[in-house]
Amino acid sequence: MRSELARKAFAELLGTAFLVATVVGSGIAAQRLSPRDTGLQLLENSLATGAVLVALILTLRPVSASFNPVVTLVERAIGRVDSTTAVSLIGAQVVGAVLGSVVANLMFGLHAVTLSTHHRTGDGLWLGEAVATLGLVLVVFGALAADHAETVAYAVGGYIAAAYWFTSSTSFANPAVTIARALTDTFAGIAPASVPGFVLMQLVGGALGAGAVLLLGARTAPDGDRA
Amino acid sequence: MRSELARKAFAELLGTAFLVATVVGSGIAAQRLSPRDTGLQLLENSLATGAVLVALILTLRPVSASFNPVVTLVERAIGRVDSTTAVSLIGAQVVGAVLGSVVANLMFGLHAVTLSTHHRTGDGLWLGEAVATLGLVLVVFGALAADHAETVAYAVGGYIAAAYWFTSSTSFANPAVTIARALTDTFAGIAPASVPGFVLMQLVGGALGAGAVLLLGARTAPDGDRA
Amino acid sequence: MRSELARKAFAELLGTAFLVATVVGSGIAAQRLSPRDTGLQLLENSLATGAVLVALILTLRPVSASFNPVVTLVERAIGRVDSTTAVSLIGAQVVGAVLGSVVANLMFGLHAVTLSTHHRTGDGLWLGEAVATLGLVLVVFGALAADHAETVAYAVGGYIAAAYWFTSSTSFANPAVTIARALTDTFAGIAPASVPGFVLMQLVGGALGAGAVLLLGARTAPDGDRA
Amino acid sequence: MRSELARKAFAELLGTAFLVATVVGSGIAAQRLSPRDTGLQLLENSLATGAVLVALILTLRPVSASFNPVVTLVERAIGRVDSTTAVSLIGAQVVGAVLGSVVANLMFGLHAVTLSTHHRTGDGLWLGEAVATLGLVLVVFGALAADHAETVAYAVGGYIAAAYWFTSSTSFANPAVTIARALTDTFAGIAPASVPGFVLMQLVGGALGAGAVLLLGARTAPDGDRA
Repeated sequence: MRSELARKAFAELLGTAFLVATVVGSGIAAQRLSPRDTGLQLLENSLATGAVLVALILTLRPVSASFNPVVTLVERAIGRVDSTTAVSLIGAQVVGAVLGSVVANLMFGLHAVTLSTHHRTGDGLWLGEAVATLGLVLVVFGALAADHAETVAYAVGGYIAAAYWFTSSTSFANPAVTIARALTDTFAGIAPASVPGFVLMQLVGGALGAGAVLLLGARTAPDGDRA
Repeated sequence: MRSELARKAFAELLGTAFLVATVVGSGIAAQRLSPRDTGLQLLENSLATGAVLVALILTLRPVSASFNPVVTLVERAIGRVDSTTAVSLIGAQVVGAVLGSVVANLMFGLHAVTLSTHHRTGDGLWLGEAVATLGLVLVVFGALAADHAETVAYAVGGYIAAAYWFTSSTSFANPAVTIARALTDTFAGIAPASVPGFVLMQLVGGALGAGAVLLLGARTAPDGDRA
Repeated sequence: MRSELARKAFAELLGTAFLVATVVGSGIAAQRLSPRDTGLQLLENSLATGAVLVALILTLRPVSASFNPVVTLVERAIGRVDSTTAVSLIGAQVVGAVLGSVVANLMFGLHAVTLSTHHRTGDGLWLGEAVATLGLVLVVFGALAADHAETVAYAVGGYIAAAYWFTSSTSFANPAVTIARALTDTFAGIAPASVPGFVLMQLVGGALGAGAVLLLGARTAPDGDRA
Repeated sequence: MRSELARKAFAELLGTAFLVATVVGSGIAAQRLSPRDTGLQLLENSLATGAVLVALILTLRPVSASFNPVVTLVERAIGRVDSTTAVSLIGAQVVGAVLGSVVANLMFGLHAVTLSTHHRTGDGLWLGEAVATLGLVLVVFGALAADHAETVAYAVGGYIAAAYWFTSSTSFANPAVTIARALTDTFAGIAPASVPGFVLMQLVGGALGAGAVLLLGARTAPDGDRA
């Protein structure tokens, strides 16, 4: 645990676990407590997710706070991390995400894992995931270029809370989180058969977002002293 | 895409597109998911809009983040941008706004464009648009004069989320967004016949806001190193 | 309008006008759009008020942003402003507050002024106003002593949004706003006969708050270069 | 009141009193005003709590702003405060918490103290308290290590607002607050018999959180000039 990479991987695992625990757990609570209005459930779910993202990014950014394989892949593509680091962080994100889903299920008295039966497919939703991930990459790398890098926490929290609402897919925008959400048959779940389509569109959106970042000129070379 | 003006125009296009996609998209989601309470729909719509404004301004401000022809016109009036720049940015804002409306419609499985049938007219609403835009100009140029220019993101996000509620018009306060909202027959739509009245009152409010800014002495000369 | 005091008074007038327009206007909108749940109305009203306070304080703090006679009186008591300034700013706050109430009524198609018939009295409510104002003075003067004075905007916005909920009186906590809220017979109104009791308890709470600030040692002498 | 420790204890007392007044008071208001949807009540309760935490931490952090015996115990464990200080601050937190509960009851016209009859037990809830407190310790000590220590206010406010939703226990995560919540038979109450289980799990979670902080390497020695 002494090495820098192990610390970063541990931060990604912890952060992604709390992120998924929030997405899944607040979805379960919302569904149970506000049974008559799906919009109110999504409001509760989206505000909890946005709020926890602010907290987690402020907390873990000094170590590592991507919590998202798409973000890590873009960092690899622009040369900010090497391949070993990228693979390690993505692995930690997936393990953390699964752990978060399991803990959320257990906290609410459910089986540790139940596969979701909530199918999410169709052109509109796939377009939604691509748009959502394009925007997320834009926000992450744009805000990191601002005067105070900590503002990325508020930018990402605000963006995701909004994206739950403005995309038809409710903006998963994160392959690790998507996989973990297949493991709970509750509000935030996604049927395993729908996962590949979502992940594919997230990768497409992420690539488009990286292109937009380059066009904006916000970052064209690795830059260790920011973020 | 190498020139500074092209980068700024691209940022205005992207930002205004995501802004309108949020206004329109979250309106559609709110209407579908919370069918029994119009106030709850507006709450969902206003929180999503305020949150995305925080994200988009933090993200794009290092390049250009007005997203609003009234703001750009005031910047031209006080000499902070030249006429070529102002025309280019306003053009990019309108194109981005239309794009955002189209994408929102498509994400939710609707036709790319449907003209709104939601008429919005009357003395109260027109007064609302003038007041809303006066306040917006005050907030943008006042907050930019503060110690940390990035706070304009929180000021504008907070202001617009509130203005959805305190004005009878729900505070469009933006000619580019108003035009684009004519292209969707959903919660956020405005009938084309109602657009000129709204835009006129936005220009009146913007002029009054610029006057208030000058009286406050917050900015009496171009100042390139802020914002 | 060239003098420093005139600029400050204008800022107080504008800020208090927008604050009251938000309190009253969002109350009217909430009552009309969410007719079935008073709590949802208060949620909409409190979030709009908290959000606009963040915006207005960030915007006007470089000039003057108290918007509240109790705060100005405490500043006089600790020697941060002289008597002429205090009287001028309080006058501007009251004029601005009345203007805000009138504009809100007009935006929503009501008479410019209608006296409220909403009686608000009783031990619990009076205790609520004293506690609310004690807390507000603590927050304003405590947060101004922090590293970055702009954080007072977030502190006050957060505090007031919460105080709408944790006090039985919904936390008016401001004599100028209280007077102006007597002029609208809507959600946010207060019957003129209930105004003196509220204002008295606000003054009591303000004095207690000033005492707490002194005990905390946060500020024992005038200090021109903060705030 | 001149000594540094007395000032810190007074800040902890005031802050914890306002925190508990908000938790209890907003719970009572929510229950009365939104009687038909428990989720809406929790939304109102959680947003008020998160918002007041931002305000209170920004306000009192220059003096002392833990408001939580678990946080103070971790600070003792890592050597940032001595035993006399820790005991004094925890005493002040408990007294303040009880005071806040009493004031909330009185503001809403209830008896000063009524023991709660709301039993909260079971594996899921206990796991919830451990997870909630683990996360809180991580957030507090992680965010304090960031560039600007004031961001801990936004991190904690966001975290707790979310944790009300993602844990099955609604995240008490604070022994002083838990004790005080036994003294009100309202929305936020907890039966005295359920208090020991909650406090035990909070201590377990706090210890795990301290371990995670050490593994992350965020803070391995006392450091007087931060926080």
